[in-house]
Amino acid sequence: MQLEFLGTGAGQPAKFRNVTSIALKLLDERNAVWLFDVGEGTQHQILRTNIRPRKVEKIFITHLHGDHIFGLPGFLSSRSFQGSDASEPLTIYGPKGIEKFVKTSLLVSESHLTYPLEFVEITKTGVIFEDTTFKVVTELLDHNVHSYGYRVIEKDHPRELLVDKLRADKVPSGPLYGQLKLGKTVTLPDGRVINGVDYLGDAKKGRIVTILGDTRKNANSIALAQSADVLVHESTYGKGEGRMARNHYHSTNLQAVDVAMAAGVDKLLLTHISARYAGKLAYELEKQAREIFAGAHVVSDFEEIDIPIKK
Amino acid sequence: MQLEFLGTGAGQPAKFRNVTSIALKLLDERNAVWLFDVGEGTQHQILRTNIRPRKVEKIFITHLHGDHIFGLPGFLSSRSFQGSDASEPLTIYGPKGIEKFVKTSLLVSESHLTYPLEFVEITKTGVIFEDTTFKVVTELLDHNVHSYGYRVIEKDHPRELLVDKLRADKVPSGPLYGQLKLGKTVTLPDGRVINGVDYLGDAKKGRIVTILGDTRKNANSIALAQSADVLVHESTYGKGEGRMARNHYHSTNLQAVDVAMAAGVDKLLLTHISARYAGKLAYELEKQAREIFAGAHVVSDFEEIDIPIKK
Ligand SMILES: [Zn+2]
Ligand SMILES: [Zn+2]
Repeated sequence: MQLEFLGTGAGQPAKFRNVTSIALKLLDERNAVWLFDVGEGTQHQILRTNIRPRKVEKIFITHLHGDHIFGLPGFLSSRSFQGSDASEPLTIYGPKGIEKFVKTSLLVSESHLTYPLEFVEITKTGVIFEDTTFKVVTELLDHNVHSYGYRVIEKDHPRELLVDKLRADKVPSGPLYGQLKLGKTVTLPDGRVINGVDYLGDAKKGRIVTILGDTRKNANSIALAQSADVLVHESTYGKGEGRMARNHYHSTNLQAVDVAMAAGVDKLLLTHISARYAGKLAYELEKQAREIFAGAHVVSDFEEIDIPIKK
Repeated sequence: MQLEFLGTGAGQPAKFRNVTSIALKLLDERNAVWLFDVGEGTQHQILRTNIRPRKVEKIFITHLHGDHIFGLPGFLSSRSFQGSDASEPLTIYGPKGIEKFVKTSLLVSESHLTYPLEFVEITKTGVIFEDTTFKVVTELLDHNVHSYGYRVIEKDHPRELLVDKLRADKVPSGPLYGQLKLGKTVTLPDGRVINGVDYLGDAKKGRIVTILGDTRKNANSIALAQSADVLVHESTYGKGEGRMARNHYHSTNLQAVDVAMAAGVDKLLLTHISARYAGKLAYELEKQAREIFAGAHVVSDFEEIDIPIKK
């Protein structure tokens, strides 16, 4: 599981930061990539990565501002062009209106997709996706249009059978292993009675990744980020610009730190960096944040962050 | 007057060719830039040029395929963001549907433009714009959606008064010059009678630039390109691929040459190059074309072509 940042700028593209798009790479976990927001030029950025558009299984849109959605029609069309077929459906989650935007764009341009496209517009918050391995929860944030945050929850990994330990104890392999894996007590052919629980590894907690849309500091952000491994938070403004951030419905780096600390996250990734913080000035944003919270980091376009399973 | 190519690829962005957009720079002529098509990422390309979005006065859309229009909403929003005001209106010309696409995109994203935006959807072909210095004529081409070509006609430059020659002949400056400029005969204070026509330079013919949308070879292309200084023609396919070009409603480089020669143009610029002709293969397209017509040239992203006034 990795996060790859395809665009880390705010408002409009700048030379070194494209507008927002974030890839959550779940290749080991589900052979899929999820995108969060698709600003204009996202497909161009993807060209420079090893992400394959046909692997993009879900797209979560935080809000409908242009710098977060104008790359969608192009990405969807090119995914078709590149030969995605009926076996590679794609679902888009987002605020009411996203379906109209995408469908109008595809209709007017007569783009006929070669794969099924589904929309889930958020009508109520809470769980918007769940299967056997992942669950996604969304809540409303505080922006000048409806903006959502997404909490991606990986389900706990089942305890693994310690095959090496079984072999060391000369437990013969076979259907017995299935019973042991369930933690049951079994009697071996040689008369020994063993308990499966003694042959199971530690349970590995699933990971939690929280990705928020543009927002002021607010309580829902903290709820979504509670104990997350990684929180991705906007940082359009810097230290001392709280008033400006408030007026523009955005956050400062230090407000993001407040959220991260209140939620007890491990790592805070700051993105949606204003062009006013070009080049080295972005490091200043990071430095200010790290003085308070060592787990803070300002990300760059094409930066990849690994999210390991906790031991 | 220059053409600057912002995107010269076909269908979808490739590493070295973005999707279509062409800037006709009329800075000396009218302190303005006109864009022809605005594929996704056009605003990103513009960032790397000296074109200022607020100078973009008109946008001509050839057809509604995504690779020709998906950059419009982003370009229009950023132009606003960069402070274009009520004194810098912009007009978009194009096929029926372009207004719906743009308006839906701006509405859904709540992008409120700071400048007036007007649409002229093509309901009949012929002259679609004319003022004292320029005229634009459009005709339907042959593509699988309505695709138009634009013939940009600069009006002839008025004959200039040869001030140096008047001084050499000791004609005193003053209100007389106005009469002479109109070609009238006047009597000088010293009794000499002179004819203004003898003091006027040669009339300079206005230039003609023809830019076509995606199309098969067809008669309207030739009409639009008649005696043009420059013809910009798609060249999605190469020599020997006429059948494929026909099936996909596109042209080969040699079909573009046919049009250029039938129309008697000075220069043929080949664009909309398929990713199949990557890197050096594009030169092959040019070489094949130049064997027949020396004025042919395959353009690259960011290439600028000057269009001088003919002596
Ligand atoms: Zn934003
Ligand atoms: Zn095209």
